[in-house]
Amino acid sequence: MVELIDDERFDYLLADESMKIIQSPTAFSFSLDAVLLAHFARIPIKRGSILDLCTGNGVIPLLLSKRTNATITGLEIQERIFSMAKRNIELNNLSDQLDIIHGDLKEKQPLLSQSSFDVVTCNPPYFQTPSQNEQNQNDFLTIARHEVFCTLEDVIKACKLYIRPGGKVSMVHRPGRLVDIIELFRKHRLEPKRLRFIYPKRGKDANMLLVEGVRDGKADLKILPPLYIYNEDGAYTKEAEDIIYDRT
Amino acid sequence: MVELIDDERFDYLLADESMKIIQSPTAFSFSLDAVLLAHFARIPIKRGSILDLCTGNGVIPLLLSKRTNATITGLEIQERIFSMAKRNIELNNLSDQLDIIHGDLKEKQPLLSQSSFDVVTCNPPYFQTPSQNEQNQNDFLTIARHEVFCTLEDVIKACKLYIRPGGKVSMVHRPGRLVDIIELFRKHRLEPKRLRFIYPKRGKDANMLLVEGVRDGKADLKILPPLYIYNEDGAYTKEAEDIIYDRT
Repeated sequence: MVELIDDERFDYLLADESMKIIQSPTAFSFSLDAVLLAHFARIPIKRGSILDLCTGNGVIPLLLSKRTNATITGLEIQERIFSMAKRNIELNNLSDQLDIIHGDLKEKQPLLSQSSFDVVTCNPPYFQTPSQNEQNQNDFLTIARHEVFCTLEDVIKACKLYIRPGGKVSMVHRPGRLVDIIELFRKHRLEPKRLRFIYPKRGKDANMLLVEGVRDGKADLKILPPLYIYNEDGAYTKEAEDIIYDRT
Repeated sequence: MVELIDDERFDYLLADESMKIIQSPTAFSFSLDAVLLAHFARIPIKRGSILDLCTGNGVIPLLLSKRTNATITGLEIQERIFSMAKRNIELNNLSDQLDIIHGDLKEKQPLLSQSSFDVVTCNPPYFQTPSQNEQNQNDFLTIARHEVFCTLEDVIKACKLYIRPGGKVSMVHRPGRLVDIIELFRKHRLEPKRLRFIYPKRGKDANMLLVEGVRDGKADLKILPPLYIYNEDGAYTKEAEDIIYDRT
């Protein structure tokens, strides 16, 4: 029996209601970004190994488990949220395939084998660290959203450390950081190969991006078709709905 | 009276038929790329100075002259095509506003004042230099399309040399080179600020990109809405047509 702590609750993972997930409004709740990243990542299906950095409550390992038999490991720095991820695996009876490690991606993790993973995914903190005055540095959500414990370069270095040569690193981030992402991916020999922009609706600037880099890959970037989330009437587009309902 | 040489002909500059341009199927004909770049570039309207590198037959200076009183200078390395650009200015009675210089962007041009232009535009050769065997290196079109006389970095260095601090550099290129473009723009302190992807039609990968960098600008990139060129039925989209007919 999986227990809830504090203000945690059981939610459905996807609108298809096939899996449940423990969330907390004050500690960690996943967003559409994670769902889009899990859908974007190209992963091995029958075997192999996947690492998810900044895994939070394990949402990406859970989502990926729906379409692969590869083993999936998540790494989470915050103990409170690591505990949610552990219980989420138990809740969905996925302990044979999924595992969560409590640790800091800035340190070499003895439980993770270097240059070995087929795919590394990451939905990192988006915002550069606010000043001490601006925000409570110990707040769970601040740590998940801001570069308090790790910078973008720390994240990308960790991706590089664990991915095998030829393996794929997939990340979701904000368009404002694209220049940094491209510069740092290349610096760490993760050649950007696929880039997709997410637009809230037609006529608006993109508000999210999905990028895939291949370790030691040769230069050849594809810009995939844009993904619109909402129609003019505020309802999900067919394509966004198919992702959210896992119909693709 | 402006004369035609060899296989040159008079074409309309835009579908609105307000201006003419000399083209040659074997030496230089402009493409939609130039029209989209001229539309994308943010330029001063009442006064100021604009430089167009790799100007070809002067298509971008001609297009920009329709919406600004700024002086516009084009630089072209190929004498045969430089001559077309000179005659195009004469043909449209624009000698008071437009000028073309014959020269190599890899050399400092004494007629161009450094760090002075408000805007620099460039529709450079897209393709990395083919081997001697692959293609005739002296062919006019090869030089316009391939990095025979200048590499992407040569072009970006020249943009940086002539743009004033805070000035805008706008370029059209292929998505496959985005990573190089972003890396080189930043290396030469042209911070990418606006990026727009052109898609031939819905559901296809982008086949062109427009990028604007600001000299010494701070990092903050916007990804503009995508531009589709064709509808499903093969006709131009409303937005593409508005640009081609200069209705925007």
